Amino acid sequence: MRLERRLEFPDYEATRVFLEQAGELSEAMDVYPNLSFGRTYANLTIFADEDSGELTAQAQTFAERIEQLLG
Amino acid sequence: MRLERRLEFPDYEATRVFLEQAGELSEAMDVYPNLSFGRTYANLTIFADEDSGELTAQAQTFAERIEQLLG
Repeated sequence: MRLERRLEFPDYEATRVFLEQAGELSEAMDVYPNLSFGRTYANLTIFADEDSGELTAQAQTFAERIEQLLG
Repeated sequence: MRLERRLEFPDYEATRVFLEQAGELSEAMDVYPNLSFGRTYANLTIFADEDSGELTAQAQTFAERIEQLLG
Protein backbone atom coordinates (compact mmCIF):
# COMPACT_ATOMS: atom_id res chain seq x y z
CA MET A 1 0.00 0.00 0.00
CA ARG A 2 1.26 3.50 -0.72
CA LEU A 3 0.09 7.08 -0.89
CA GLU A 4 0.45 8.88 -4.21
CA ARG A 5 -0.26 12.50 -4.98
CA ARG A 6 0.32 14.38 -8.25
CA LEU A 7 0.83 18.12 -7.91
CA GLU A 8 0.86 20.71 -10.69
CA PHE A 9 2.51 24.13 -10.35
CA PRO A 10 2.24 27.33 -12.45
CA ASP A 11 6.02 27.59 -12.92
CA TYR A 12 9.38 26.15 -11.82
CA GLU A 13 9.70 28.69 -9.01
CA ALA A 14 6.48 27.39 -7.39
CA THR A 15 7.69 23.79 -7.85
CA ARG A 16 11.05 24.66 -6.27
CA VAL A 17 9.40 26.36 -3.26
CA PHE A 18 7.20 23.30 -2.67
CA LEU A 19 10.19 20.94 -2.92
CA GLU A 20 12.13 23.01 -0.39
CA GLN A 21 9.21 22.99 2.06
CA ALA A 22 8.70 19.24 1.60
CA GLY A 23 12.44 18.73 2.15
CA GLU A 24 12.35 20.66 5.42
CA LEU A 25 9.34 18.62 6.54
CA SER A 26 11.17 15.38 5.61
CA GLU A 27 14.18 16.34 7.73
CA ALA A 28 11.97 17.46 10.62
CA MET A 29 9.86 14.28 10.62
CA ASP A 30 12.45 11.80 9.26
CA VAL A 31 9.96 10.75 6.58
CA TYR A 32 11.42 10.64 3.06
CA PRO A 33 8.85 10.13 0.30
CA ASN A 34 9.86 9.58 -3.31
CA LEU A 35 9.47 12.86 -5.12
CA SER A 36 9.50 12.82 -8.92
CA PHE A 37 9.40 16.30 -10.40
CA GLY A 38 9.91 18.31 -13.55
CA ARG A 39 9.42 22.00 -14.31
CA THR A 40 5.78 22.32 -13.27
CA TYR A 41 4.79 19.04 -11.55
CA ALA A 42 5.75 16.82 -8.63
CA ASN A 43 4.58 13.29 -7.92
CA LEU A 44 4.83 12.39 -4.27
CA THR A 45 4.83 8.71 -3.21
CA ILE A 46 4.92 7.57 0.41
CA PHE A 47 5.55 3.85 0.76
CA ALA A 48 4.02 1.65 3.42
CA ASP A 49 6.24 0.25 6.15
CA GLU A 50 7.95 -2.87 4.73
CA ASP A 51 7.13 -5.09 7.75
CA SER A 52 3.58 -4.04 8.55
CA GLY A 53 2.56 -3.18 4.99
CA GLU A 54 0.77 -0.20 6.55
CA LEU A 55 1.50 3.51 6.36
CA THR A 56 3.15 4.44 9.64
CA ALA A 57 1.41 7.08 11.79
CA GLN A 58 4.44 9.28 11.06
CA ALA A 59 3.91 8.87 7.30
CA GLN A 60 0.20 9.69 7.63
CA THR A 61 1.03 12.82 9.65
CA PHE A 62 3.59 13.76 7.00
CA ALA A 63 0.93 13.41 4.27
CA GLU A 64 -1.45 15.64 6.28
CA ARG A 65 1.29 18.26 6.76
CA ILE A 66 1.98 18.21 3.00
CA GLU A 67 -1.73 18.87 2.37
CA GLN A 68 -1.55 21.85 4.76
CA LEU A 69 1.48 23.17 2.83
CA LEU A 70 -0.62 23.13 -0.32
CA GLY A 71 -3.31 25.14 1.49
CA MET B 1 15.50 8.25 -26.85
CA ARG B 2 16.35 9.56 -23.40
CA LEU B 3 19.25 9.90 -21.04
CA GLU B 4 18.95 8.24 -17.63
CA ARG B 5 21.34 8.40 -14.73
CA ARG B 6 20.92 6.93 -11.24
CA LEU B 7 22.85 8.67 -8.49
CA GLU B 8 23.44 7.46 -4.93
CA PHE B 9 24.33 9.76 -2.04
CA PRO B 10 25.71 9.06 1.46
CA ASP B 11 22.93 11.04 3.18
CA TYR B 12 19.97 13.36 2.58
CA GLU B 13 22.14 16.46 2.94
CA ALA B 14 24.29 15.34 -0.03
CA THR B 15 21.13 14.56 -2.03
CA ARG B 16 19.69 17.98 -1.21
CA VAL B 17 22.89 19.80 -2.23
CA PHE B 18 22.90 17.97 -5.59
CA LEU B 19 19.23 18.78 -6.20
CA GLU B 20 19.87 22.44 -5.48
CA GLN B 21 22.80 22.57 -7.90
CA ALA B 22 20.83 20.71 -10.57
CA GLY B 23 17.94 23.16 -10.04
CA GLU B 24 20.23 26.15 -10.54
CA LEU B 25 21.62 24.56 -13.72
CA SER B 26 18.06 23.90 -14.97
CA GLU B 27 17.10 27.54 -14.50
CA ALA B 28 20.35 28.77 -16.09
CA MET B 29 20.05 26.50 -19.15
CA ASP B 30 16.23 26.22 -19.33
CA VAL B 31 16.56 22.42 -19.39
CA TYR B 32 14.25 20.62 -16.95
CA PRO B 33 14.94 16.90 -16.58
CA ASN B 34 12.68 14.63 -14.55
CA LEU B 35 14.31 14.12 -11.18
CA SER B 36 13.01 11.31 -8.99
CA PHE B 37 14.64 11.27 -5.58
CA GLY B 38 14.41 9.87 -2.07
CA ARG B 39 16.67 10.20 0.96
CA THR B 40 19.90 8.94 -0.61
CA TYR B 41 19.27 8.59 -4.38
CA ALA B 42 18.22 10.60 -7.41
CA ASN B 43 17.25 9.30 -10.84
CA LEU B 44 17.73 11.87 -13.55
CA THR B 45 15.94 11.48 -16.90
CA ILE B 46 16.39 13.85 -19.81
CA PHE B 47 13.87 13.28 -22.59
CA ALA B 48 14.60 13.69 -26.28
CA ASP B 49 13.03 16.57 -28.18
CA GLU B 50 9.46 15.50 -29.12
CA ASP B 51 9.78 16.55 -32.77
CA SER B 52 13.27 15.40 -33.64
CA GLY B 53 13.37 12.42 -31.27
CA GLU B 54 16.94 13.49 -30.55
CA LEU B 55 18.51 14.97 -27.44
CA THR B 56 18.92 18.68 -28.11
CA ALA B 57 22.45 20.11 -27.97
CA GLN B 58 21.27 22.04 -24.90
CA ALA B 59 20.19 18.81 -23.19
CA GLN B 60 23.52 17.14 -23.98
CA THR B 61 25.41 20.13 -22.57
CA PHE B 62 23.19 19.97 -19.49
CA ALA B 63 24.06 16.27 -19.04
CA GLU B 64 27.78 17.08 -19.32
CA ARG B 65 27.45 19.89 -16.75
CA ILE B 66 25.66 17.47 -14.38
CA GLU B 67 28.59 15.03 -14.74
CA GLN B 68 30.99 17.88 -13.86
CA LEU B 69 28.88 18.66 -10.76
CA LEU B 70 29.38 15.08 -9.65
CA GLY B 71 33.13 15.46 -10.11
